[in-house]
Amino acid sequence: MKYYSYDSFKTDTNRLLLEIKEFEPEALVGIARGGLTLSHAVVEGLNVRNIQTLSTQLYDKTQKREALCIKGFCEFENIQRVLVIDDIADSGDTLKAIIKMLRTKHPKVEFKTATLFYKKTSVYKPDFWINEADDWIDFFWERDFKSN
Amino acid sequence: MKYYSYDSFKTDTNRLLLEIKEFEPEALVGIARGGLTLSHAVVEGLNVRNIQTLSTQLYDKTQKREALCIKGFCEFENIQRVLVIDDIADSGDTLKAIIKMLRTKHPKVEFKTATLFYKKTSVYKPDFWINEADDWIDFFWERDFKSN
Repeated sequence: MKYYSYDSFKTDTNRLLLEIKEFEPEALVGIARGGLTLSHAVVEGLNVRNIQTLSTQLYDKTQKREALCIKGFCEFENIQRVLVIDDIADSGDTLKAIIKMLRTKHPKVEFKTATLFYKKTSVYKPDFWINEADDWIDFFWERDFKSN
Repeated sequence: MKYYSYDSFKTDTNRLLLEIKEFEPEALVGIARGGLTLSHAVVEGLNVRNIQTLSTQLYDKTQKREALCIKGFCEFENIQRVLVIDDIADSGDTLKAIIKMLRTKHPKVEFKTATLFYKKTSVYKPDFWINEADDWIDFFWERDFKSN
């Protein structure tokens, strides 16, 4: 397990910003919880004001198989390009389900995806990513804040 | 103008977590853009999975007066206690408008608010806050990420 510090995040996010700025997104969708801090940094860095969030929940559908449920609602009035942000494409299930839903609901919008980490075994490959993940990542936002 | 670093944020957020944990929120509402990083840290620290976001836009209503428009949509099914998060209660207009809308739309839910900074001149005082602000704050998320 590798601790991923704020300093590493700062460096990587600035590298990511250089790649995604050519896409010129007019809105962002941050995937909660993992993508929230990165979404914030990216909207500040690109100076985009339109930021919306979605989250996913796993629930037992038949007690045999898990299903992914997307929570939240997005609106893209007069918006052409949207960047979807998560921290990591791990299994890739979340990004795959969310991008499928967004493209179905908003067929006129161009969606691209960005993450800090990408695992080669992921079922979905983001358009923009910085690091290949080969170990469990201990993100600073999961480690640095405790209520007890 | 004072730079507010990630290290200060980490210390302050952990102090804030100790105060808000007694409220036992079941869901959070983060106010974009400023409240996004704090919302993420708080949901991780409290281990709350339900995080939703709202944002506000100022627009010219009559070219004489600005109006505050709330963007986004929240859902609180079977939820009793919700914490609303922003970085700062500065003028207080945003928090005042959002808490009024939320209490009107969801009368059965108990809402409380938390910020890192509070200005004495704010028209709204958060339930939980850490620092009094007497100067312009240069938050690390506004300073550390640039696409050029």
